[in-house]
Amino acid sequence: MTWTVVGSATGEVVIGDDRPFVVIGERINPTGRKLLAEEMKNGDFSRVERDVLAQVEAGAHMLDVNAGIPLADEPAILAKTIQLVQSLTNLPLSIDSSIVEALEAGLAVYQGKALVNSVTGEDERLERVLPLVKKYGAAVVAISNDETGISEDPDVRFAVAKLIVERALDHGIPREDVIVDPLLMPIGAMPTAGRQVFRILGRLRDELHVNSTCGASNVSFGLPNREGINGAFLAMAIASGLTSAITNPIAEGVRTAVMAADVLQGNDQDASRWIRTHRVGPPDGDVGGRRVNRRRAGPGAETGAGAGAVG
Amino acid sequence: MTWTVVGSATGEVVIGDDRPFVVIGERINPTGRKLLAEEMKNGDFSRVERDVLAQVEAGAHMLDVNAGIPLADEPAILAKTIQLVQSLTNLPLSIDSSIVEALEAGLAVYQGKALVNSVTGEDERLERVLPLVKKYGAAVVAISNDETGISEDPDVRFAVAKLIVERALDHGIPREDVIVDPLLMPIGAMPTAGRQVFRILGRLRDELHVNSTCGASNVSFGLPNREGINGAFLAMAIASGLTSAITNPIAEGVRTAVMAADVLQGNDQDASRWIRTHRVGPPDGDVGGRRVNRRRAGPGAETGAGAGAVG
Repeated sequence: MTWTVVGSATGEVVIGDDRPFVVIGERINPTGRKLLAEEMKNGDFSRVERDVLAQVEAGAHMLDVNAGIPLADEPAILAKTIQLVQSLTNLPLSIDSSIVEALEAGLAVYQGKALVNSVTGEDERLERVLPLVKKYGAAVVAISNDETGISEDPDVRFAVAKLIVERALDHGIPREDVIVDPLLMPIGAMPTAGRQVFRILGRLRDELHVNSTCGASNVSFGLPNREGINGAFLAMAIASGLTSAITNPIAEGVRTAVMAADVLQGNDQDASRWIRTHRVGPPDGDVGGRRVNRRRAGPGAETGAGAGAVG
Repeated sequence: MTWTVVGSATGEVVIGDDRPFVVIGERINPTGRKLLAEEMKNGDFSRVERDVLAQVEAGAHMLDVNAGIPLADEPAILAKTIQLVQSLTNLPLSIDSSIVEALEAGLAVYQGKALVNSVTGEDERLERVLPLVKKYGAAVVAISNDETGISEDPDVRFAVAKLIVERALDHGIPREDVIVDPLLMPIGAMPTAGRQVFRILGRLRDELHVNSTCGASNVSFGLPNREGINGAFLAMAIASGLTSAITNPIAEGVRTAVMAADVLQGNDQDASRWIRTHRVGPPDGDVGGRRVNRRRAGPGAETGAGAGAVG
């Protein structure tokens, strides 16, 4: 069993196939969020603060932090955001940028063992990012594309992942500190996207013995009821081998699917978290102290759920 | 690709890995439903009628029909129930009994190609049920236990399934007319139950090349929010290879998970069924003519679903 350990100054998270699935909150990301981008650029981090607290309350295990704002000083903003987020929570962070200087600026201020998001299979990227990962003793997300782009053949994408793991080993980064992202395309644009990813995930677990992650919300791009697609995708991907995902912990459909998948994988001991979250309590009572769970635990929760429940 | 075709006098359903998942409605079953058992025994089939119509409206592809009532004339009641159900719907039926005489009575009155539910790997059962399946040109559910009981080793259960398929072939029943049930235990009682079944399902698809089914509601026995567990289980099992299930089509969590899994397996062409069901229509409009879908298509359906949706 491969365990990836990441941490903050005082917190630690273990990612592994025999562990509860790790949800990496996706919300701190100005991509496509004009208002947030504008605010972050102007030094207003109030919305970031709210996104941190909401994701922590919703039960995220880690938070992704991205500061990709066009025409802004991304390294400086990313470093500042990371310092702010670490002052608000002890969840480990994923430092998310496509700019190497931003990754380095983030790592320089980060307290603990970070997850660097990400490196691809292109030679130039590998030679710039992997030394940073090694220098700061971080873990890294390896995205399985290379100079030739993103192959539609899952076995080619697996081969790219294998190459990145080998290159990481060459740099002194152990296998357990490489988390592979098999690259998830929108299913509405590519009907084979799901099966491709399920196949790669099985090989990552069984043959390459590495942990995995993906940007899970991408799969439902362009479709209605995205939460329904995202939740089912996560359950299916977890059964196939996925051990973490960058996704929205605030979406109830996502959270319920992940918790149920933990039960079904045998990773929620005695289903105790599931029972604590879903049992029917007194109408205004406090079940486990998490307000956000109350909506799910109403008296109608079991209606029509199973065979033979009512005459 | 293995296709199992079952039918009624005028309807047909194809089960296969490249086809939409087949939901076999579980509701017509007096087990644990005292009132229904009493009514059926006394010749009152009004509740059966309602269960037929509700499951048809909810989008079931087939219906399971069970008349297992203690101290009653099961063969006669099963035959009568089947005739009634076939007068109400043209969905193909699964004839469900552990009593061979009841299976035969059901087959004798059935119009079309039925699914016989079920045969186990015990020698005596095989030699009594398989000739009936052959005689009536039916398909059959093969449950992967035998004289030694239900093994906890998925590879032993796979071996039992393989043996049943071979015995069916000996009787002139083609491979595509055997649908294997890998036997799903309650996850609350056996934390390995999910992984065991996911593993068997993959081997059934990739090595034995047969379709599969299971009584999916069983997995959540004893847990709260059974619908949440059942929906996630089905998505995970579908990714692992499951091609049909005996479950509750009326449970919204189950229906949504199955529909989303079809999209993610690439089996809902252009996601057209998903989009038709979930798109936001006019408040009192008719989306695809199915009243039961309206609840899901409210304006809040996409809230918080994906990254970067709102500023």
